Amino acid sequence: MSITIESSDSPAPAPAGLEGVIAARTRVGDVRGREGFYHYGPYDAVALNRQRSLEDVWHLMLLGHLPSKAEQGAFARRIAPLQVLPTDLIPELQRLAGVIPFDALAALRTSLSWWAQRRQLRSWIDTPRDEVFQSLLEITAITPTLMAALFRISNGLEPVQPHDGWSTAKNYLWMMNAVEPDDEHVWAIERYLISTIDHGFNSSTFTARVITSTGADAGAAIVGAIGALSGPLHGGAPSRALDMLDAIGSPDRAESWIRHAVADGDRIMGFGHRVYKGEDPRSTLLRDVAQQLGGPLAQFAATVEETIIRVLAELKPGRELNTNVEFYAGVVMETCGVPRGMFTPTFACSRVIGWAAHILEQIDNNRLIRPSSLYVGEPAPQLIPTIA
Amino acid sequence: MSITIESSDSPAPAPAGLEGVIAARTRVGDVRGREGFYHYGPYDAVALNRQRSLEDVWHLMLLGHLPSKAEQGAFARRIAPLQVLPTDLIPELQRLAGVIPFDALAALRTSLSWWAQRRQLRSWIDTPRDEVFQSLLEITAITPTLMAALFRISNGLEPVQPHDGWSTAKNYLWMMNAVEPDDEHVWAIERYLISTIDHGFNSSTFTARVITSTGADAGAAIVGAIGALSGPLHGGAPSRALDMLDAIGSPDRAESWIRHAVADGDRIMGFGHRVYKGEDPRSTLLRDVAQQLGGPLAQFAATVEETIIRVLAELKPGRELNTNVEFYAGVVMETCGVPRGMFTPTFACSRVIGWAAHILEQIDNNRLIRPSSLYVGEPAPQLIPTIA
Repeated sequence: MSITIESSDSPAPAPAGLEGVIAARTRVGDVRGREGFYHYGPYDAVALNRQRSLEDVWHLMLLGHLPSKAEQGAFARRIAPLQVLPTDLIPELQRLAGVIPFDALAALRTSLSWWAQRRQLRSWIDTPRDEVFQSLLEITAITPTLMAALFRISNGLEPVQPHDGWSTAKNYLWMMNAVEPDDEHVWAIERYLISTIDHGFNSSTFTARVITSTGADAGAAIVGAIGALSGPLHGGAPSRALDMLDAIGSPDRAESWIRHAVADGDRIMGFGHRVYKGEDPRSTLLRDVAQQLGGPLAQFAATVEETIIRVLAELKPGRELNTNVEFYAGVVMETCGVPRGMFTPTFACSRVIGWAAHILEQIDNNRLIRPSSLYVGEPAPQLIPTIA
Repeated sequence: MSITIESSDSPAPAPAGLEGVIAARTRVGDVRGREGFYHYGPYDAVALNRQRSLEDVWHLMLLGHLPSKAEQGAFARRIAPLQVLPTDLIPELQRLAGVIPFDALAALRTSLSWWAQRRQLRSWIDTPRDEVFQSLLEITAITPTLMAALFRISNGLEPVQPHDGWSTAKNYLWMMNAVEPDDEHVWAIERYLISTIDHGFNSSTFTARVITSTGADAGAAIVGAIGALSGPLHGGAPSRALDMLDAIGSPDRAESWIRHAVADGDRIMGFGHRVYKGEDPRSTLLRDVAQQLGGPLAQFAATVEETIIRVLAELKPGRELNTNVEFYAGVVMETCGVPRGMFTPTFACSRVIGWAAHILEQIDNNRLIRPSSLYVGEPAPQLIPTIA
């Protein structure tokens, strides 16, 4: 009985989780973990974040270059109407947000699936590229609007429409809270949003490309990516670091808390990353943002960070652990008034831009993504047993 | 300016589309393309199909072994209530199926996303395994029911409930047409359903595993997989072969039609497969089923198949092309009264069982699936231009 494996061209399994396997060539951006550096197109993502708006980076990701002044105006005029909530969608969102308890990402997943269905998106193979581009522009524009509307509806509130002329970041806070946000909160949340647009071949980006590779429409790809983002090993638990700060309670309790946690083998939230061995550049940026925002939470977080790093260096020497994006992202969002249940959904509102860029790139140079597997079960074929 | 690539552990990109890359070890089944053989667990999938019911194979896929007589009864009693359509879901399905033109897979995607949200599925990391198993049993049981209900509603008809004691295949045809189906149609559609439950690391199965690897709930994974299946390069166009038969029109026109198509460089639908170099065993099985069903379509298809293979052998010598699953699957479904717009959705109703098996396996031995990419854009970092 033969047990030949079909995929004899590469009989050795790839590393678990495809770690280090280069699944695509990309111009969208890259992560250089050892250097603690990541970039969008050819630009240092942190420097870009300090100098440009969310809309500029959005333009870069979807159109491949930073906009000129004229292009900034044209892009703003193009996205503004796409950010308006279609009023005939509101009854549907009321049903989708009505499940108790409210699961924001699941509601966004269903809403965007419904939106794409209603928009009659078809396979990109049968669609001119400029129409695919338009549909991705629409998805990236409507996502923060849908998310904020679902959030308000889940709290028994009426959705509010974005203001024409306001930035996406300002409108996002406005559409959640229906209060004109402080300039510094707009500035801070915009830095957060830019910092999380893209980050290499993370699982949700990869999911979007796998789905796109079958010829599926952009809606199917984005809906799948939202599903991947909802997993706690990816985007699904960015409030854990804040929950830890709550558990610690006050700066003077930080050291004993962390020593107990290490002794009990508990995971320290907001620390460490598979790719960054040194400092996560997003954490550096968001620490700066948090400190500029100020307030007791930012101060407390800085103390806890310093304590954790010092105690971990003592208890686990050689295992250099630094804060990852999760730690200060939570501090920034909480300070800006974003509730914890909306942390990952807010992440989705920026990452959708990165997904869109990768979907376009996949379309422009497609090959069906279909790996192999290695069968390790009982040798086949076996006789089929009679029913006993 | 450094342009070091972070992923220097494996600097060579993997083959395009990850072809031949072994992304996981599995006990679910395998495809041996060169041998023209595929199996479910350790059993030849074609032999299993000829000897066992859909429910038996479903049991094998989710529980890892074929059921004994007692287990058959227990499994039937367990799935029957899960196949009933919750009546409070009907108004929601009426809205989801109400988009014109009806896109059955998009409607199924949104409906299952909504179902999972309403069911309050949570990350499997935070869920006991037997609850995850139960949720997957529910998803596999409700999918044909939802799909048939959406189909009827889209045609302005009332959904009908499954009969307790009828097989899943019989109930599926019943729930679509509200007419008790012929035994031979039930037998034929059951063979089709069994034949498409699993097939290696196809793109939708891989999508389900990538999403699951993040810790996301089973609903998120299935919704993503449906998106991948909707792409025409994967499951999204199984009626193309029948459309070709329509275009050919009659047996005597087959030869001239195929010669013109080859001369014009048109693709011949329903022929060739990336993995099978010889005959697709699913095609062999479904040809037998079609011939047993009989009728003018099955006869016409056999003539066209014979003509295409003969003409292709003459015009493209050495490129052995055979019918793939698409060709006779269409003939079987059309003969059983499944409309063309429901071909891929019917595929989804069986493949969901394979996805569920892979999701369970991923959970039981998880590692986040996160490959790398190779940046090939302009060297980074570049100076950020001032706005002009």
